[in-house]
Amino acid sequence: MKHPASVTLTLPAWLKAMLAGDLEMRDPEQRMRWVIGLSRRNVEERTGGPFAAAVFARETGQLLGAGVNLVEPLNLSPAHAEIVACAFAQKRAGTFDLNAVGAGCELVTSSQPCLMCLGATLWSGVTRLTYGATAADVEGIVGFDEGPLPRDWQGELGKRGITVAGEFLRAEAVEVLSLYKETAGTVYNGRSRG
Amino acid sequence: MKHPASVTLTLPAWLKAMLAGDLEMRDPEQRMRWVIGLSRRNVEERTGGPFAAAVFARETGQLLGAGVNLVEPLNLSPAHAEIVACAFAQKRAGTFDLNAVGAGCELVTSSQPCLMCLGATLWSGVTRLTYGATAADVEGIVGFDEGPLPRDWQGELGKRGITVAGEFLRAEAVEVLSLYKETAGTVYNGRSRG
Repeated sequence: MKHPASVTLTLPAWLKAMLAGDLEMRDPEQRMRWVIGLSRRNVEERTGGPFAAAVFARETGQLLGAGVNLVEPLNLSPAHAEIVACAFAQKRAGTFDLNAVGAGCELVTSSQPCLMCLGATLWSGVTRLTYGATAADVEGIVGFDEGPLPRDWQGELGKRGITVAGEFLRAEAVEVLSLYKETAGTVYNGRSRG
Repeated sequence: MKHPASVTLTLPAWLKAMLAGDLEMRDPEQRMRWVIGLSRRNVEERTGGPFAAAVFARETGQLLGAGVNLVEPLNLSPAHAEIVACAFAQKRAGTFDLNAVGAGCELVTSSQPCLMCLGATLWSGVTRLTYGATAADVEGIVGFDEGPLPRDWQGELGKRGITVAGEFLRAEAVEVLSLYKETAGTVYNGRSRG
């Protein structure tokens, strides 16, 4: 095989169907329940890891981009939920800087971002991050290696103009991690390497 | 606009043309010179930021995936050179874990990875990272915010089975950063927000 001409991120059919109409969610709890629902569905449908995320316009609550973990189905290690959600939101908004959208954007994620997604959050232009389960939950329950996160990761975001809220509906988010573990989902983990 | 159905990473035409045939580079210096050459060309062609990366099979020197920074042309903040290169290599290899390829893979990057790309390196399955310019060069010369990198970032990679080599041909890599600065390339920078 030669060098590919392109690499495409596509969402699972069940998620595409959910996004057929415009969605607006003004209530923070509604947003997080919807995102945790995506993470659960991703496990149940076996279309990837137990993680989901979405970008909302802060003022209107309009859903701009949704994502689930697609590492296995797409064979792409960067296809974490947060990166997928930001990519779709940026394509939709026509900018690499989500801060250019109205009164800014919020990234809602079912679990605290791993090191890669913490960095992706910094570059994305969102001004608010809301998360459910913690990185310790992800490492302890599922066994992924979330990477060398800064001790004061919330402060690092704060310094760069991004407010953080969580652990929000953590118990519900943790249930999905446990479900993934019980159904023997793949744990692709740096630590398991050579 | 509705929620997009997909997001596609495509390389600039000049880079696609360079990848028409199979490339093999056994010499570490040749690999790095080639990668720094891509970063320079990306600035000269105005097709993105002053960064390039490539994934090579360690044993054979075969080029598996090449990437340049495509944040601006694709309107995608995660489209850093390292993520693009890993995505193409993984698509080509048909796996999200580049450690599954022969005797493993090396990621060669013109500048030390930012926080997002450090995390992406951990998930990618590469077992060796070679870089040119440092994060301090990128921050000092161009002004990007590389994020809250761990003090011992090389040690964090080492703990996870990834050896690190650099600063390799740093002066040549730094020249490209300076060229970008001189030609007034966009600095999309978290710190400038809010």
